[in-house]
Amino acid sequence: MKKADIGLVGLAVMGENLILNMESKGFTVACYNRTVEKVDHFVQGRGKGKKIIGCHSIEELIQNLEKPRKIMMMVKAGKAVDDLIEQLLPHLDDGDILIDGGNSHFPDTTRRTEYVESKGKLYIGTGVSGGEEGALTGPSIMPGGSPAAWPHVKPILQAIAAKVEDGTPCCDWVGEKGAGHFVKMVHNGIEYGDMQLICEAYQLMKDLLGMSADEMHKVFKAWNEGDLNSYLIEITRDILAFKDEDEQPLVDKILDTAGQKGTGKWTAIAALDEGIALTLIGEAVFARCLSAIKEERVAASKVLSGPTPKFKGSKKAFIEDIKNALYASKIVSYAQGYTLMRAAAKTYGWNLNYGGIALMWRGGCIIRSIFLGDIKKAFDKNPDLTNLLLDPFFKEKVEAVQASWRRVVARAAENGIPIPAFSTALCYFDGFRSERLPANLLQAQRDYFGAHTYERVDKARGEFFHTNWTGRGGETSASTYTV
Amino acid sequence: MKKADIGLVGLAVMGENLILNMESKGFTVACYNRTVEKVDHFVQGRGKGKKIIGCHSIEELIQNLEKPRKIMMMVKAGKAVDDLIEQLLPHLDDGDILIDGGNSHFPDTTRRTEYVESKGKLYIGTGVSGGEEGALTGPSIMPGGSPAAWPHVKPILQAIAAKVEDGTPCCDWVGEKGAGHFVKMVHNGIEYGDMQLICEAYQLMKDLLGMSADEMHKVFKAWNEGDLNSYLIEITRDILAFKDEDEQPLVDKILDTAGQKGTGKWTAIAALDEGIALTLIGEAVFARCLSAIKEERVAASKVLSGPTPKFKGSKKAFIEDIKNALYASKIVSYAQGYTLMRAAAKTYGWNLNYGGIALMWRGGCIIRSIFLGDIKKAFDKNPDLTNLLLDPFFKEKVEAVQASWRRVVARAAENGIPIPAFSTALCYFDGFRSERLPANLLQAQRDYFGAHTYERVDKARGEFFHTNWTGRGGETSASTYTV
Repeated sequence: MKKADIGLVGLAVMGENLILNMESKGFTVACYNRTVEKVDHFVQGRGKGKKIIGCHSIEELIQNLEKPRKIMMMVKAGKAVDDLIEQLLPHLDDGDILIDGGNSHFPDTTRRTEYVESKGKLYIGTGVSGGEEGALTGPSIMPGGSPAAWPHVKPILQAIAAKVEDGTPCCDWVGEKGAGHFVKMVHNGIEYGDMQLICEAYQLMKDLLGMSADEMHKVFKAWNEGDLNSYLIEITRDILAFKDEDEQPLVDKILDTAGQKGTGKWTAIAALDEGIALTLIGEAVFARCLSAIKEERVAASKVLSGPTPKFKGSKKAFIEDIKNALYASKIVSYAQGYTLMRAAAKTYGWNLNYGGIALMWRGGCIIRSIFLGDIKKAFDKNPDLTNLLLDPFFKEKVEAVQASWRRVVARAAENGIPIPAFSTALCYFDGFRSERLPANLLQAQRDYFGAHTYERVDKARGEFFHTNWTGRGGETSASTYTV
Repeated sequence: MKKADIGLVGLAVMGENLILNMESKGFTVACYNRTVEKVDHFVQGRGKGKKIIGCHSIEELIQNLEKPRKIMMMVKAGKAVDDLIEQLLPHLDDGDILIDGGNSHFPDTTRRTEYVESKGKLYIGTGVSGGEEGALTGPSIMPGGSPAAWPHVKPILQAIAAKVEDGTPCCDWVGEKGAGHFVKMVHNGIEYGDMQLICEAYQLMKDLLGMSADEMHKVFKAWNEGDLNSYLIEITRDILAFKDEDEQPLVDKILDTAGQKGTGKWTAIAALDEGIALTLIGEAVFARCLSAIKEERVAASKVLSGPTPKFKGSKKAFIEDIKNALYASKIVSYAQGYTLMRAAAKTYGWNLNYGGIALMWRGGCIIRSIFLGDIKKAFDKNPDLTNLLLDPFFKEKVEAVQASWRRVVARAAENGIPIPAFSTALCYFDGFRSERLPANLLQAQRDYFGAHTYERVDKARGEFFHTNWTGRGGETSASTYTV
């Protein structure tokens, strides 16, 4: 058998499926797993009769690879990646390429790129989204790292990636060092937001409108045929129709506790570090935290009372309102996510292609949707767009549905239905379009108690003033001490 | 002159005021500053004729201190603290005590405590809140670090601290290593939240009710005489009455852009790390971020339209609603902050005294209020209270005002007034008292696209299920790869 075009280490489901995807596109793939029984199991099972070379040691893997060697690492993010790099490095020649396809934190990828390059090798850290099925049939792939590595891995990664209608692959070069994993992180944060928005729409229909899973299935089916067409709406439609063994909706039997430890949290922290108001993803992460304390909530539900949800008016019209609120909130979430990427690009010196990112997310990944096609168009029209809400298409969309959005938030507040993502999105929209926010009072407070100084509306920016508000304090403004 | 009871390094306003406070309580204080002209300026100026020893070198400072030496460092948080520790350490004897009174990040304080202890010395990292004036007249002091140091510094720190009505000092031992700075960080986060809540109340009165600064001054004056009595309401009252040189309200001339870089952000990140839904402080930090992009907002205000605020009904009644909404939101914010401290105490092995913390915040600091007296009572009644909302006093308060709260959030949404903190607090309240949240759908989604498994309401916790939703995917659940 000829040598392999690429090697892959880590035979969990994602790794196996990526191998099968590569092989189906004509590539020969060598594979290795620390627990070597998995190698035999895979090669004699799902990989049987295919151009897959099972290797029982790192040495064997290395010998079976064409140069420059390309080795994709599909192991758990964190120490396992560093350990694997250390194991592989001594066997590599200059110009060989290591590819991390796991969910690594972008600062780790930046560090690893610099480290591996310092040893004369090349490094790629790439986001891969689409879950198990996407890995097999065409994921969204977001590679960053050593630019010199890209021409070598491009044919393979673009071949296995999802394609949009015109055949363009959902994979393109993102940028240096940790850029690929940063964009994948924001993708995952947006995924947290999209899922939370769907959950809030579901809760409004269930708890305020009293709808059954079957009735909601029909609503999501209809939504998936319009502006909201997307993978997550589609699977929600199917989930709501799925019956348990007793023919009752399975969704009703599932415990309402979601975990959060990963990339949603990182996205929120990145936003805090960049000083970007990423409120919707933040609320989505916190909503998962609140869902996790199930026992506390059960106890609290017996102590704290609220209004009994009572809906008056046309259910049909309110379902339309919910759809509109979801759509508008989604625009805000993507506007916030793109603002974060723009800020990070400035901080880290990346030259991000925002339309290209929308295209990468357009297919293959969990957040794929026709909506991302509209985002692509917005950045094609204006690559320097500072906020998605200012694009004429999205501006018109938001303005057309804002009355619906406001009704949904107001009715939810009155009826005791928690919809933090819908609410914060509306607050952001109203804050963003406010020439004047109440931070003037906040600046006055900070100057009052901490002499932090303020700027004035009738003076140039950059000129700072301090007022002796009490007549008692000094005229000195704060220098080293900041509350 | 006798040797000094304590030394202080760093003669910015806070440092100077702490020295004058200590001296006024009978202590002799030695001081040093890197720019030594400041020492002379201080000793011959504000410190003239007092028991203050100006030192022109570290050696001179060391020679002038009683043993065990106690040296308070009032320098900029970060590298300056590490540098100063390195400068001081070689001159210290075993058992001498270094005290960091700046706004250090708690992990730094943990690291420094371990480092200084490894050299045979003792370390205290203490929050000091109250701004310039508090430092002079009695701040709130939150010390943590080496327990063996506490008996030596206790007489000085408790003497200079603020006192509550019965004379109890707003200073007590918090816990080991970074515990003091952690509690101070949460204090500052809560301060962010309190300030944002006041800003939202102000904006509703200004933009929805069309009230003038003078009219609002009267409202805050009245509020300060009831349940909301607090330092921040009091200074807001005074700020609203303060006139510029042209006799117009100064607050109207101040630019509406607030900075955020420090402890509010750290608090939000700590909450994300602990998995605690600290939504109100999170929104307060993000609101500052949004305020900061003034030029973008001005541009957006010309593009994005919204409803023209229009108020119908009794202004007086709505002002009462706003007060109630502020009070209820404040309860949520403190409930969230205390939940974060409880989680961190578990993570870091601190035995925090929650009532004691309320007492420390009861006076001296920026968030001081009669409200904190009620929190103290809640923890006195039940030291194991898991959530402030479950305390009978606060439960009754929230339930009594929740109709007001819901009206305010609903009217703001309808009228285009952004009140993210009021809104998120209400969502938290409604989420916390929900036996069932929509995370069951979210878990179904995660299992659908990533085989992440779920628990069931009709099975024991800890038992995980995976469904082959499409009939196409495998029966294997995800192991190493997590979206």
